[in-house]
Amino acid sequence: MRRTHRSCDDHFRDHCGVFAVYGHPEAAKLTYLGLYALQHRGQESAGIVATEGKELRHHKAMGYVAEIFTEPVMSTLTGHAAIGHTRYSTAGETSLLNAQPLIVTSNKGLMALAHNGNLVNAQQVRRRLEAAGSIFQTTSDTEVIVHLLAKSGNESLREAFAEALRQVEGAYSLVMLTREAVYAIRDPRGFRPLCLGRLDTAWVVGSETCAFDLIGAEYVREIEPGEMVVLSAGGVESAYFSPPMKHTYCIFEHVYFSRPDSVIFGRPVQKSREMLGRLLAREHPADADIVVPVPDSGTAAAIGYALESGVPLKVALIRNHYIGRTFIQPEQSIRDFNVKVKLNPVRSLLENKRVILVDDSIVRGTTMRKIVRMMREAGALAVHVRVSCPPIVSPCFYGIDTPTKRELIGSHKEVKEIADFLGVDSLGYLSMEGMRKAVADAERRYCTACYTGKYPTDFVELQLQAEATAAEKTDLQEAFSNKRARFD
Amino acid sequence: MRRTHRSCDDHFRDHCGVFAVYGHPEAAKLTYLGLYALQHRGQESAGIVATEGKELRHHKAMGYVAEIFTEPVMSTLTGHAAIGHTRYSTAGETSLLNAQPLIVTSNKGLMALAHNGNLVNAQQVRRRLEAAGSIFQTTSDTEVIVHLLAKSGNESLREAFAEALRQVEGAYSLVMLTREAVYAIRDPRGFRPLCLGRLDTAWVVGSETCAFDLIGAEYVREIEPGEMVVLSAGGVESAYFSPPMKHTYCIFEHVYFSRPDSVIFGRPVQKSREMLGRLLAREHPADADIVVPVPDSGTAAAIGYALESGVPLKVALIRNHYIGRTFIQPEQSIRDFNVKVKLNPVRSLLENKRVILVDDSIVRGTTMRKIVRMMREAGALAVHVRVSCPPIVSPCFYGIDTPTKRELIGSHKEVKEIADFLGVDSLGYLSMEGMRKAVADAERRYCTACYTGKYPTDFVELQLQAEATAAEKTDLQEAFSNKRARFD
Amino acid sequence: MRRTHRSCDDHFRDHCGVFAVYGHPEAAKLTYLGLYALQHRGQESAGIVATEGKELRHHKAMGYVAEIFTEPVMSTLTGHAAIGHTRYSTAGETSLLNAQPLIVTSNKGLMALAHNGNLVNAQQVRRRLEAAGSIFQTTSDTEVIVHLLAKSGNESLREAFAEALRQVEGAYSLVMLTREAVYAIRDPRGFRPLCLGRLDTAWVVGSETCAFDLIGAEYVREIEPGEMVVLSAGGVESAYFSPPMKHTYCIFEHVYFSRPDSVIFGRPVQKSREMLGRLLAREHPADADIVVPVPDSGTAAAIGYALESGVPLKVALIRNHYIGRTFIQPEQSIRDFNVKVKLNPVRSLLENKRVILVDDSIVRGTTMRKIVRMMREAGALAVHVRVSCPPIVSPCFYGIDTPTKRELIGSHKEVKEIADFLGVDSLGYLSMEGMRKAVADAERRYCTACYTGKYPTDFVELQLQAEATAAEKTDLQEAFSNKRARFD
Amino acid sequence: MRRTHRSCDDHFRDHCGVFAVYGHPEAAKLTYLGLYALQHRGQESAGIVATEGKELRHHKAMGYVAEIFTEPVMSTLTGHAAIGHTRYSTAGETSLLNAQPLIVTSNKGLMALAHNGNLVNAQQVRRRLEAAGSIFQTTSDTEVIVHLLAKSGNESLREAFAEALRQVEGAYSLVMLTREAVYAIRDPRGFRPLCLGRLDTAWVVGSETCAFDLIGAEYVREIEPGEMVVLSAGGVESAYFSPPMKHTYCIFEHVYFSRPDSVIFGRPVQKSREMLGRLLAREHPADADIVVPVPDSGTAAAIGYALESGVPLKVALIRNHYIGRTFIQPEQSIRDFNVKVKLNPVRSLLENKRVILVDDSIVRGTTMRKIVRMMREAGALAVHVRVSCPPIVSPCFYGIDTPTKRELIGSHKEVKEIADFLGVDSLGYLSMEGMRKAVADAERRYCTACYTGKYPTDFVELQLQAEATAAEKTDLQEAFSNKRARFD
Repeated sequence: MRRTHRSCDDHFRDHCGVFAVYGHPEAAKLTYLGLYALQHRGQESAGIVATEGKELRHHKAMGYVAEIFTEPVMSTLTGHAAIGHTRYSTAGETSLLNAQPLIVTSNKGLMALAHNGNLVNAQQVRRRLEAAGSIFQTTSDTEVIVHLLAKSGNESLREAFAEALRQVEGAYSLVMLTREAVYAIRDPRGFRPLCLGRLDTAWVVGSETCAFDLIGAEYVREIEPGEMVVLSAGGVESAYFSPPMKHTYCIFEHVYFSRPDSVIFGRPVQKSREMLGRLLAREHPADADIVVPVPDSGTAAAIGYALESGVPLKVALIRNHYIGRTFIQPEQSIRDFNVKVKLNPVRSLLENKRVILVDDSIVRGTTMRKIVRMMREAGALAVHVRVSCPPIVSPCFYGIDTPTKRELIGSHKEVKEIADFLGVDSLGYLSMEGMRKAVADAERRYCTACYTGKYPTDFVELQLQAEATAAEKTDLQEAFSNKRARFD
Repeated sequence: MRRTHRSCDDHFRDHCGVFAVYGHPEAAKLTYLGLYALQHRGQESAGIVATEGKELRHHKAMGYVAEIFTEPVMSTLTGHAAIGHTRYSTAGETSLLNAQPLIVTSNKGLMALAHNGNLVNAQQVRRRLEAAGSIFQTTSDTEVIVHLLAKSGNESLREAFAEALRQVEGAYSLVMLTREAVYAIRDPRGFRPLCLGRLDTAWVVGSETCAFDLIGAEYVREIEPGEMVVLSAGGVESAYFSPPMKHTYCIFEHVYFSRPDSVIFGRPVQKSREMLGRLLAREHPADADIVVPVPDSGTAAAIGYALESGVPLKVALIRNHYIGRTFIQPEQSIRDFNVKVKLNPVRSLLENKRVILVDDSIVRGTTMRKIVRMMREAGALAVHVRVSCPPIVSPCFYGIDTPTKRELIGSHKEVKEIADFLGVDSLGYLSMEGMRKAVADAERRYCTACYTGKYPTDFVELQLQAEATAAEKTDLQEAFSNKRARFD
Repeated sequence: MRRTHRSCDDHFRDHCGVFAVYGHPEAAKLTYLGLYALQHRGQESAGIVATEGKELRHHKAMGYVAEIFTEPVMSTLTGHAAIGHTRYSTAGETSLLNAQPLIVTSNKGLMALAHNGNLVNAQQVRRRLEAAGSIFQTTSDTEVIVHLLAKSGNESLREAFAEALRQVEGAYSLVMLTREAVYAIRDPRGFRPLCLGRLDTAWVVGSETCAFDLIGAEYVREIEPGEMVVLSAGGVESAYFSPPMKHTYCIFEHVYFSRPDSVIFGRPVQKSREMLGRLLAREHPADADIVVPVPDSGTAAAIGYALESGVPLKVALIRNHYIGRTFIQPEQSIRDFNVKVKLNPVRSLLENKRVILVDDSIVRGTTMRKIVRMMREAGALAVHVRVSCPPIVSPCFYGIDTPTKRELIGSHKEVKEIADFLGVDSLGYLSMEGMRKAVADAERRYCTACYTGKYPTDFVELQLQAEATAAEKTDLQEAFSNKRARFD
Repeated sequence: MRRTHRSCDDHFRDHCGVFAVYGHPEAAKLTYLGLYALQHRGQESAGIVATEGKELRHHKAMGYVAEIFTEPVMSTLTGHAAIGHTRYSTAGETSLLNAQPLIVTSNKGLMALAHNGNLVNAQQVRRRLEAAGSIFQTTSDTEVIVHLLAKSGNESLREAFAEALRQVEGAYSLVMLTREAVYAIRDPRGFRPLCLGRLDTAWVVGSETCAFDLIGAEYVREIEPGEMVVLSAGGVESAYFSPPMKHTYCIFEHVYFSRPDSVIFGRPVQKSREMLGRLLAREHPADADIVVPVPDSGTAAAIGYALESGVPLKVALIRNHYIGRTFIQPEQSIRDFNVKVKLNPVRSLLENKRVILVDDSIVRGTTMRKIVRMMREAGALAVHVRVSCPPIVSPCFYGIDTPTKRELIGSHKEVKEIADFLGVDSLGYLSMEGMRKAVADAERRYCTACYTGKYPTDFVELQLQAEATAAEKTDLQEAFSNKRARFD
């Protein structure tokens, strides 16, 4: 069961989920369960590092959390503190080399680091460090943080860490493990979520609260943007390593990434999703017989749409749950095979019906086009597509796997043209105002760069250029490329 | 991704799915896709046999269809005709030994056989055959059919087959492959489904129509009870090997087994499921704020319930899609861990709400009890459970994996007592009349033995006794026991 | 580490090894060790069946004994009696289907059977049985024995077994397990070895005595040709199921098959091998500087040759011990790659030397030709090949994997022509008289059919014909063909 | 097939083998074959890095060369230049983390490094580097070399490399790959071998010449101690980065490590080994009937002994070739099981014989003791053990896996006491003079520290202390410990 975890492939993908435990005799097991609940944030590799205060024991491997961490593996990860990471990676780096947590020794001692997010000035910092004699063993932007940490003359690890973090720019929700403590850190803008929880006398940290639910931990609060929380024998300590900055929470966490049962940026995700559907119904009603969700990504918004519009909801697209890594396709190729293998329309529900098809977002549009065609072939008289966010026009550089700008159908086509491409009777996107309202964004504290092309940080232009010039990438990313047969 | 494919474990499970193709250059590949679409009917082992008219090439293995049939394996399964089988098995037989299709040579030549269903007089026939010198290599009831076939003095394979089938009693939807033809056969009562389809000039046969959709084949009709259809170079031939008997289609196919996008016994499953929910709402309304389905088994009925009652539907139980084979549980055990690892309640939707929780059936009741408890802990004020079929009181002997009679909560508890056990505010089961109406059973042609304890065939008493006396089982089932480490 | 276990591929290969234990609390573990010591007799699949007197638990798989029988697997194979089998198979049947022991139920009860040897009238008997309604699930000749057993009207299992065995012709060293006893049986001519041993109060049976050494068991005696030994709670019972026949022990067991540390047919193998080399030196001396064995098959004879001739022995061909399943060969192909990957000549020992190269036998001659070429390229001035048995002229039908007659270089070339083909300075084969003397064959009790083409049984002509007509084979062997990717 | 590659476990083990190719279109495939031939120098993990001048593609994994480098993996390792490494590791580091080649980027660009040997001042250098802000990701001593390289202000890579190497002390035979060139470097004392070869227009480098034989390359010469050879489009360039030092070639390469068909330090290994046996016979004759080698390590010396003494050689200890990773031992334990599973004495050759048993070395003595006991139990009247080198008294710090000083039986027992421990009739070790003469050490240029305790480098005392204080090790080695289940 690799690849697609929700409906079809045409979605942005989050790069990572992180989890940490301090003060529990089974820290690694709880971390394993936390990662399991965060599996949707990264399905390619996973790692756990645990300590009993002396050694740092680790296991990292390609694959699913539940496959990687077997009983014999877990039995070696002893100790009262642990951190874990689950990860998606971009095409070129599908390798164990970059699997996290990253573990290093330096003059600051032994440490392990797991990172959700993406630094936008990593290449600049890296070149500077290399010029001064640092060597790099991964292509991960995370590695620059530990180099900066090692370079700091500051003897206090916390001070050195703060000093290092002030030199990087971008998105980072970090958990770090040393022999003595767990550190939980969130960048000053707070792009990606990071939550603090409590399980009896132990402390837990995780990307989403759904991980707390599984282990029975209680949600305490978010790690604040710019905050460094240290969990150790001395209890919980908090400090801010950065002056306050304008918050730019990732709005897409509410639209798609986060699990619907999580509370993210202080707001229940499911509540946002239903409201996205309700406002979509108000903005873009349609004269139709049934509302059909694209499973599973469009389900919550479709329910909201149906409730608001009064048009009955029907589960007329059935998702196949047994998707394997690869599929052998007959040579006499089956039309729309890639979508059919995941979704099947229910003829008895669609025949002679006018359909409102609801999904959360459209990235390239190719999958939606096939779904629309399948629905017509199954007898739908009309297909009205409704999308619970605005058109995506620009890539993300803050830890999300997105295609290049020119692959985004919203970046170069008007809504009318997209409707033609999809072959729909009508197409409606939720407005920016609607989306913001649905996520309760009264204070405009969300990052909406993928909808607007306006990025909250510098250095992004460089990345957009780099995207154009493949040569740029060679030096770092592709140079390490380890295209192992089974993962390609 | 082993084990549970829908919601939780507390369900009956179908034993098998079958598929066959005749007259297509990529017969095995289409069979592979057909089995993939039928994966929900058996997730433990799968097999395909293909022929180009001379040899019968096969591959059988434990595991999922998409994992077993890799490119190199498929490249060996050449030919224009093929049959396939996907299988669930009961606890004691988790072994490749009984994996199907069964392949044998005899005086009738080479043949491969795949069977969905269960014979109720298999042991009696087997003893008779053994007394006459037959030897058995599996514990499968299917093996008696090929022995009877070999014993027949009739030189015509069809006649011999008919002669053999008239000696067995029970449920069998069979596909058989010889060098020359594919046979599709359904028992005279028609317990299990079996459908005929067409793909250009090729013929296909499958347990459910959802398998036809994936490969783009057209549904033609059901194989009729008591019918033997032969697909060969001579085209399609049909014959009845048995005088007409009262039909007893398995009603549970509509309640739970079949995929919602299939057409079974000539009726769309999704239509039945929504109607089960609608009639449930009429029979057992509740004063509540939201309708919540137990995913995924209760979803269709919950939608029907919500539409009929006007109470809004909320997806307040989230299913985890990454369930692995085994889970490592912390020693400081987490309450209701087994359910939590699959389902998580959404607090923001449940808090201070009166909930109608809808599922398709209750077998032991243990899982539902845990779900109810989780919903209360997530803040639900009241939990009203509604079940879209009557209480199950008796096991099935026609090809379904059911627990023993005494494990069925409905066999020894009144509805009131079950409600107490579950800890609900109210409990409502759909009536027998409601269920029959929902599946359009005007002609009373369904088997409802699991709800009534009245079985349409003889020999069942023997099985009920056998269930009580473990000793009986030793000789056949356990004697072969192959408790291989990784599958137990 | 698959495939070749001794020197190169150009050798006959034994099909199987068998082992059995009765009366030991760890019967399956001892059987596992016994099979491990017999691994050279079959490296493709292995199986063990064990009983505690009630059930027959088994595990069979493709691969090496030490890989197949892991701790969890072994923990399920409980009981005081067990039998095991390790197996090589011919190209077409590389499948688990035919893996032994064969396990069946019949009117004679549950039984498991493991067979070393080959029946020459299996097809005739099989056709007769099929005509009477028996069905076959394997292509193994062993299956006819259990059918004959089931057909017998005799109520005594021993009598029925004797009756069955009297209907088959050929080579069989069998071990059989029932709930009550272990049976050890050897065909009346005694083609293949079978030995009885004792470990404290337990009895063991094995193909070779080297298996007894590993577990610390004591060699008692051979199972005699035509003898059936029954090991049970009642102790050891012996009976002869056949009138005495002329013994025809396989002489090739002494030439090559058996492990040198075994005692076979009452004679230490190593003693025979050294004597083969000594007599070879007397018959075919050569004016040379060094004697070089082809490792490992020619080592014992080379030592004998060196001792007898006084020419010093040098290990000038080094064998690579890390041979894997497959090798990736550069496209710019390396000359004699397949041999080079296994053997490397030692230039410092060969340079300017006249070499006597000793091997045990030559089958096709292709490997030896490459070795000779490599030795010349490493500087040898002259290469005199000496072979410790006569030319092989005819295939074996008694349980040995041999190529067809026309592939045997000795079947159609004179010694002079073979010498030319090999490119040697001289070629000497041990004479028939020499070979017989070396194995102490005073009573002419050995089968030498592969050297003479004179077979001790009927039915062999049919097989030689069958070899010519590929069509014959289709029906049984190829029809079942299961060319699984990883084993091809 | 893990673990022991020669006879039993009681041997020193070499840590690594290296190989490199420049200027061949199938550089990685040749490297793979080279590593395959060097498998005896490290059987735990292997890695290859290849380049076409732009990217560095790599694959590293635990396991055997022939298992790791499958066709799909090889197809990704394109280019005309490649380096490879095969590795053994000490107990605590059995992990992929330290697998080589090590790949890094720095201000000197992309590079990959593979190292055979061990630095004795690695910890001192590492501490100094860490103090200056370097971070370490492995516990390998090799990593300090690349840090020193990155720290060098010298813009020429060669100059920087030379500068780095002058700061380290110990044994290193290195191959390095950049986008432009392959570097082959040997430490100024020349502890470990490194050879240069030619294949048509391509250049190859390898630890031993046996790797050249397999690919058909021609041996050119040794890389000289203190030499850096650069293979690039510009041809072969050679330079010395260090002033001349006294050579200290590892004498144990001739005694045991190297393959007998290799030419090492300019001398054929097989020639040395036979001479070791001949001189042993002269120094320690014995009145006995047969000479028996301990296979395979003692074979060459035993042949020399037999030739010199005139006592006939007999292969009376048979080695089992199918040794698996782990063995399941019966609970009723079998005496000397660990040795029996690998070696079996041949009773027919030993009975009533006085035996001279020859092996190359004795480390702990425990295995030899068991072999001696087995030989007596097989009937030997007397057992005289002869060892083809002096007693080992001190560990090696130059890249060999040796036990601690106190585990070496020669470090604390006199020969007489060792003989008592082994239970032999007599025990003879070759003298230091004999050993030197056998390897043609006229110029005293070999390191014999393991026989004398006199080390040619500084820093060794620190290591001997470290061995005593376990605490020292924690910080680096154990801290990273990754005790993965399957490798422990």
